Amino acid sequence: MDERLLRQIVVPGTSKIVLLVMDGLGGLPRPQTGMSELETAHIPNLDRLARDGACGLTVPVALGVTPGSGPGHLALFGYDPIKYDIGRGVLEATGIDFDLHPDDVAARGNFCTVDAQGMITDRRAGRIPTEEAAPLIERLRQIHLPGVQVFVEPVREHRFVLVFRRPGLSDRLSGTDPNREGLAPLPVKALEPTAQETADLFNRWIAEARRLLADQPRANMVLVRGFAKPPVIPSMAELFQLKAAAVAIYPMYRGLAKLVGMTALPAGHCFADEVDAVAKHWPDYDFFFIHFKGTDTAGEDGDFERKARALEEVDREIPRLLALAPDVLMVAGDHSTPAIMAGHSWHPVPFVLHGRWVRPDAAQRFSERECLRGSLGTFPASEALPLALAHAGRLTKYGA
Amino acid sequence: MDERLLRQIVVPGTSKIVLLVMDGLGGLPRPQTGMSELETAHIPNLDRLARDGACGLTVPVALGVTPGSGPGHLALFGYDPIKYDIGRGVLEATGIDFDLHPDDVAARGNFCTVDAQGMITDRRAGRIPTEEAAPLIERLRQIHLPGVQVFVEPVREHRFVLVFRRPGLSDRLSGTDPNREGLAPLPVKALEPTAQETADLFNRWIAEARRLLADQPRANMVLVRGFAKPPVIPSMAELFQLKAAAVAIYPMYRGLAKLVGMTALPAGHCFADEVDAVAKHWPDYDFFFIHFKGTDTAGEDGDFERKARALEEVDREIPRLLALAPDVLMVAGDHSTPAIMAGHSWHPVPFVLHGRWVRPDAAQRFSERECLRGSLGTFPASEALPLALAHAGRLTKYGA
Repeated sequence: MDERLLRQIVVPGTSKIVLLVMDGLGGLPRPQTGMSELETAHIPNLDRLARDGACGLTVPVALGVTPGSGPGHLALFGYDPIKYDIGRGVLEATGIDFDLHPDDVAARGNFCTVDAQGMITDRRAGRIPTEEAAPLIERLRQIHLPGVQVFVEPVREHRFVLVFRRPGLSDRLSGTDPNREGLAPLPVKALEPTAQETADLFNRWIAEARRLLADQPRANMVLVRGFAKPPVIPSMAELFQLKAAAVAIYPMYRGLAKLVGMTALPAGHCFADEVDAVAKHWPDYDFFFIHFKGTDTAGEDGDFERKARALEEVDREIPRLLALAPDVLMVAGDHSTPAIMAGHSWHPVPFVLHGRWVRPDAAQRFSERECLRGSLGTFPASEALPLALAHAGRLTKYGA
Repeated sequence: MDERLLRQIVVPGTSKIVLLVMDGLGGLPRPQTGMSELETAHIPNLDRLARDGACGLTVPVALGVTPGSGPGHLALFGYDPIKYDIGRGVLEATGIDFDLHPDDVAARGNFCTVDAQGMITDRRAGRIPTEEAAPLIERLRQIHLPGVQVFVEPVREHRFVLVFRRPGLSDRLSGTDPNREGLAPLPVKALEPTAQETADLFNRWIAEARRLLADQPRANMVLVRGFAKPPVIPSMAELFQLKAAAVAIYPMYRGLAKLVGMTALPAGHCFADEVDAVAKHWPDYDFFFIHFKGTDTAGEDGDFERKARALEEVDREIPRLLALAPDVLMVAGDHSTPAIMAGHSWHPVPFVLHGRWVRPDAAQRFSERECLRGSLGTFPASEALPLALAHAGRLTKYGA
């Protein structure tokens, strides 16, 4: 929804909205059966939601566009995913609970292995264990650059986050990963003249890192990419007047939620834990984003059966979510990940909105095909949240 | 799709896309049977495409807007038909293979008949035969204007193209055709002050033309309209990384295709010839636009039966197109031309996309009604090409 219009009509309230995101939810039929993952799984509770609720299909970014997790989620949070572009470095930083300042430039770092000639022999330094990386992170923290606050934060295995803090830094920089072994790491290049000074600073830091790691057998060099400043984005509290909480096991999704001002709650280890977390904090928030990753990882692995089982894992907990009596429950996906494609895709994503005021439609099950018969049609994912606000009594009349 | 977004995610490839445009494809039921042209015709191959493919309806420009051929095609080529406005003069010029320069202003010219008082008695000079017009064109070529290169090119019968070439000319001019007999031709008027000099030049040329044609019995005057400069439009190669060819029998559609950088191939005389042309050049291009005119002319003539027969003419050749094994085959229309309206209309146009990754839907036949049950919904025609690019593996992921 147009932000100016939204700000005119949004009103505070006490109603509660739940957004359940099944990552990579949408699928395609497998040729053997002609049925998709959703059509194959036994999901009686989701099917009941579809029968009782208003169904449709969301377009995450635009027709034909395959979204990454960033734009896919921002859209479901009610933001224009083209207007608000979130760089990889920012995603990584927020995902480890690093509080980014407006003056920061964050990048994703990797340890890698180079040979005597400086050519990369392993872009991931053999995926060294987190414990082995820890002392190397400590070494990198000894690098000092005049006038710049530098943060090096471990992520997992060979990955870390690198943040430079100083007013006037630019993120218009190219990464150093040549994306292939046998080549030397690239220098950081300025993508516009005003970024040259920042490029020089990063190159200086990388040269120091190489020197400090030279004695290492595996992790003797670093690759840095995805330079990004935090986006200037209004919080959900400001834009939608929602006190929002996120329940997500994977760091990246907590990070995304925090970028729009959500509070990340402890999420546990499986979907049932996530529902517990929502129940525990039910009185404290009026918007809950729950992230479920299993559908996407199974889809990415091309494992049709496992994706169907992941859907069933979620289905089993739906009654507990409904027992909390949310005013609106949305079940959505950030994008499709058809198992037969073994990757993200551009296909619109099944969507159901459950609440008191929904207009019943012809959808009898929760699937790609049945959602086509829904009353919401095929619509931009960024319109789902305004729709939920309406159903939760949070939008007042526009115009006299 | 947003052009900036598109440029970020488009990637080169070797996959092949075919866009078959049936001009004026969409129709309306005739009252006697309650069935549209598509529902009346015997089109088993198009019906099979609809069953196997993803169906929908395209909105050429906007809901309620009846498009001419220019915007209708530009949209299907993936361009915003409101942003890129193509004037009539430019269409006519490109349609006769006239190479327009950026400095040109092109106009459509007609011979007409005026009486002794200068009032128009026949706006088309009795549609004089092309051979009769040829020596008159030669006469008009004798007109010289200081500093301006002038081109007069025959089209057919009473029609010609008039092009002025000089830096700084404007196309913000009104035409001279009063659209009614019994009135005098209008002067060319400047629609903004900076166009006054160009208006004066055209008026001077027209005065000379009147003098040179004064002795003619029929074609003793000219009407000039549709002044236009060539649009500044990125080519399909630049914008979509496609090597595109056009197969169109009618000049205007070749012209449109050439404006976006397509190569116009020899098209023959009937639809079967057009398919031959595609087959012959199959290895040389990765995008083929095939234009079929018969549906539109029959619709414009209000000839319901002939439009149904035209649909069948196309249907017969569909297996030969499929035999080429395109990665994506789209069957579309630039607008609707319902025979019962005997003219272009604003109604959304049946559309089917056939390819490996389509999501099956409920459409069982290729018709207005069945396409409503398709998985693509009712969507902007300019989104069809991005969708085809996605299905052909030509768009990479957006965002991390």
